[in-house]
Amino acid sequence: MTFTLTVRDHMMVAHSFSGETFGPAQRVHGATFIVDASFRASELDTDGVVIDIGLASEALAEITGSLTYRNLDDEPEFAGMNTTTERMCQVIADRLAERAADGRLGSAGARLSSIEVTLHESHIAWASYERSL
Amino acid sequence: MTFTLTVRDHMMVAHSFSGETFGPAQRVHGATFIVDASFRASELDTDGVVIDIGLASEALAEITGSLTYRNLDDEPEFAGMNTTTERMCQVIADRLAERAADGRLGSAGARLSSIEVTLHESHIAWASYERSL
Amino acid sequence: MTFTLTVRDHMMVAHSFSGETFGPAQRVHGATFIVDASFRASELDTDGVVIDIGLASEALAEITGSLTYRNLDDEPEFAGMNTTTERMCQVIADRLAERAADGRLGSAGARLSSIEVTLHESHIAWASYERSL
Amino acid sequence: MTFTLTVRDHMMVAHSFSGETFGPAQRVHGATFIVDASFRASELDTDGVVIDIGLASEALAEITGSLTYRNLDDEPEFAGMNTTTERMCQVIADRLAERAADGRLGSAGARLSSIEVTLHESHIAWASYERSL
Amino acid sequence: MTFTLTVRDHMMVAHSFSGETFGPAQRVHGATFIVDASFRASELDTDGVVIDIGLASEALAEITGSLTYRNLDDEPEFAGMNTTTERMCQVIADRLAERAADGRLGSAGARLSSIEVTLHESHIAWASYERSL
Amino acid sequence: MTFTLTVRDHMMVAHSFSGETFGPAQRVHGATFIVDASFRASELDTDGVVIDIGLASEALAEITGSLTYRNLDDEPEFAGMNTTTERMCQVIADRLAERAADGRLGSAGARLSSIEVTLHESHIAWASYERSL
Repeated sequence: MTFTLTVRDHMMVAHSFSGETFGPAQRVHGATFIVDASFRASELDTDGVVIDIGLASEALAEITGSLTYRNLDDEPEFAGMNTTTERMCQVIADRLAERAADGRLGSAGARLSSIEVTLHESHIAWASYERSL
Repeated sequence: MTFTLTVRDHMMVAHSFSGETFGPAQRVHGATFIVDASFRASELDTDGVVIDIGLASEALAEITGSLTYRNLDDEPEFAGMNTTTERMCQVIADRLAERAADGRLGSAGARLSSIEVTLHESHIAWASYERSL
Repeated sequence: MTFTLTVRDHMMVAHSFSGETFGPAQRVHGATFIVDASFRASELDTDGVVIDIGLASEALAEITGSLTYRNLDDEPEFAGMNTTTERMCQVIADRLAERAADGRLGSAGARLSSIEVTLHESHIAWASYERSL
Repeated sequence: MTFTLTVRDHMMVAHSFSGETFGPAQRVHGATFIVDASFRASELDTDGVVIDIGLASEALAEITGSLTYRNLDDEPEFAGMNTTTERMCQVIADRLAERAADGRLGSAGARLSSIEVTLHESHIAWASYERSL
Repeated sequence: MTFTLTVRDHMMVAHSFSGETFGPAQRVHGATFIVDASFRASELDTDGVVIDIGLASEALAEITGSLTYRNLDDEPEFAGMNTTTERMCQVIADRLAERAADGRLGSAGARLSSIEVTLHESHIAWASYERSL
Repeated sequence: MTFTLTVRDHMMVAHSFSGETFGPAQRVHGATFIVDASFRASELDTDGVVIDIGLASEALAEITGSLTYRNLDDEPEFAGMNTTTERMCQVIADRLAERAADGRLGSAGARLSSIEVTLHESHIAWASYERSL
C-alpha cells in the first residue's frame, strides 16, 4: 500500500552541456522545467494526508526559486557537472530529502518512504529520479 | 512484466477539513477530482487485454456517480474522516478491489495484481493510492 | 494584429444551482476551476509585453484568492445568482477589467483591447467569457 | 466560416530581458517554448485541407530549428529587442507569413486569411500573436 | 461580449485519403479524434448558462457515437470526400447546427451565435471549424 | 535509486478486434496512439544521462514509423493477434529491448534496467507495459 502526493512548480534556466553526444545542446540554450515532486508513504497521518500540501508546495517553491532565472553554467554548485534533466531531478529530490530529514517537512519527514521528482523539459521529453528516504 | 490499463472519469464534490493544518480549507469548499483508475496484471487474457475496458469504465463510473454532486461532509460513510485527496483515492481503490473480488470486473478479477487510483485536484496537485489485490 | 498574454491560476469552491435543468447539480457540490485570464492588445509596450506578467498574475491571484475555499452559496455578492462556470468567467473578467480601468494593471490598462477568462470545470467541460475594454 | 489547422513544435532558448519590470528575468535564464502555429482560411482546398500538414510542419520546424539551442541575446537579428514570449510569437508568425507569400506553403499561401502563433512558456503562462495575410 | 461553453468527447475511426499530397496517409490508417464542441452566445439564459451542458454533451455524444468504431471510407455519406480533420470538424459542427435549428438543443438554439468544433488528431496537430448560426 | 528518461511520439493506425467483448470495436476502426517510451537505469552515464535522448527518440521514431499509417489487420506480424492498446505497448517495448540488447541504443543498452511503454488511445484511456532488461 502506497500513498503519493504530488505538487507541481516550474523553473526557467539557461545552461549548456559538455560532450559531443549533446550536439547543438553544447551551445548555451535554455529550458522551462515543469517540476513534479512526489512524496510517498505507506500510511497517512491523523489528518489524512501524506504530507501537509502547504509545506510540500513551499519546500518545492523554495528549491525552484533558488534555481530559476539563472544560467546554471554560472552556479558554483554545478561546476563540472552537466545539468541534464535527469541530474536536475536528482538535485531537487536530494534537497527535498534533506528537508524531510531535518524536520522542515513537519511530521511527514519521519513517515515518507520515498521521493520522486519529474522534470518535463518539453511536451515530448521528461525525466525523473526516485530515491528512498 | 506488468501490464496496466487506466481509465479516467471525474467527480465534483463539496467538503471541508478538520485540523488547523488545513487553514482556509477548513471552510466548506469544493473540488473537481479527475479520477484515473489503473488496473495491473502480469499477463493479458486471451482477448489481449488486462481487463474489459467497458467493465472497467462502468465500474469507475458507478463509483464516481455515487459520490459526485454531493457534499461529502453530509455522507454518513465519511463521518469523522477528512475526505482528503489521498483518502478519496483509497476509498475508490478499495471499492474497485471489492468489485474485483466479487466478480463484477469479470475474469480480470482473478488476474489483477494491483489497483492504483489517482485523483487530480488541480493542475498543480494530485494524489494516488496503490494497493495489491 | 492582436497580441494575447494568458496566465493560469485556480480556485476550489462549493456551490449549488437553482433550476430543474441542473438535475443533481442542484445539490451542494463543488468544483476546481482552472482559471485562464487572457489580456489582449494590438500593440506591445516598450518592454515588448502586452502586460507585466507579474501584475497580471498577482491580479488574477487576488481575485481567485478572494473566491477559493469558499461556499459561493454563502457569499452575499452572489445571492440569487447561479454561480455557473459561464457566470464565474464573467465575474472574474469584470474584476480584471476594473483593475485595468483604475490603474492596478499599470500602463497596460490603457492599451488593453479585451479580456477573456476561461474556467475549466473538468477535463471534458470549460467555459469562457470575452469582453472589450 | 473559418477553418484552422494547427501544428505544434518546440524550441529551447536562453535569453535575458532589459527593463526593471522584469525583475529576476533580467538575468540570463531560459525557456522551453512549446510553439503552436495556426493557419486559417475560409475555404478548404480540393484535397479537403487548409494547408498540407507536411508543409506546415516543415515550415514551423525550419523556423524553430533556426532558433533552438541558442542564446537569443547573441543573435544579431534580436539586437536591442526583448525576446519576450509575445515578441517571439510575432517573429515566428511573420516568418510563416513570408513563406505563405513566397510560395513555400504551396497553394495554401494564396488561400490563408490569417496566421496565429502561440508560445507556451510554462504550464501557467502563454502568449499568442495573430495577424492577417 | 461573448460567452462560450465547450464540451469534449472522442471518436476512433479508420479512413484513407485520396491525393498524392497525403503520402503514406493514402493507405488505410486511423485516428482518435478528441472532439471539442464550443457553443457561443452573447447572453446567458435565465439559469445563467449558454446551453444546458447535459443537452450539449448528449448532442455531441450522439454525433460521435454515429461515427466512432467505423471505417469512414465505407460510410455512404462520405463517398468521394476526404474525411480530413478539417472536414470532420465541419461535419460535426453542421450536425450540431441542425440540432440548434430544430430545437434539439432547447432554448439555446435560438440564442446561439456560432458553433466551433475542434478535432485533435494527435498531441501535435489539431484543426477546427467555426460557423455562425 | 532509479532514473527514468521518457520520450513521446505517436502513430495513427486502423485495426479491428476479435471477440464479443469488444462490441462495436470488432468493426474496422482506428486510433491515434500517443506513445511514451521510458528508459530506466539506476545510474547515469558520464555525460549525466540515462540514454542519449537523440538515440532514444530515433529508436522510438523508427518503430512508430514502421507501424503508422497502416491497417494493423493487414500486417503479417500481427496475424491472429488482437492489436489492443496493451499488446501494442508490449510490441513496442520488446522492439526497444532488442535495440538495447544489440547495441543500437549505445552504451545505455548495458545500463538500462527496464523499459516501459505507455500508449494513450484517448484522453480517457491508456495502457502501459513494463519489462526488465
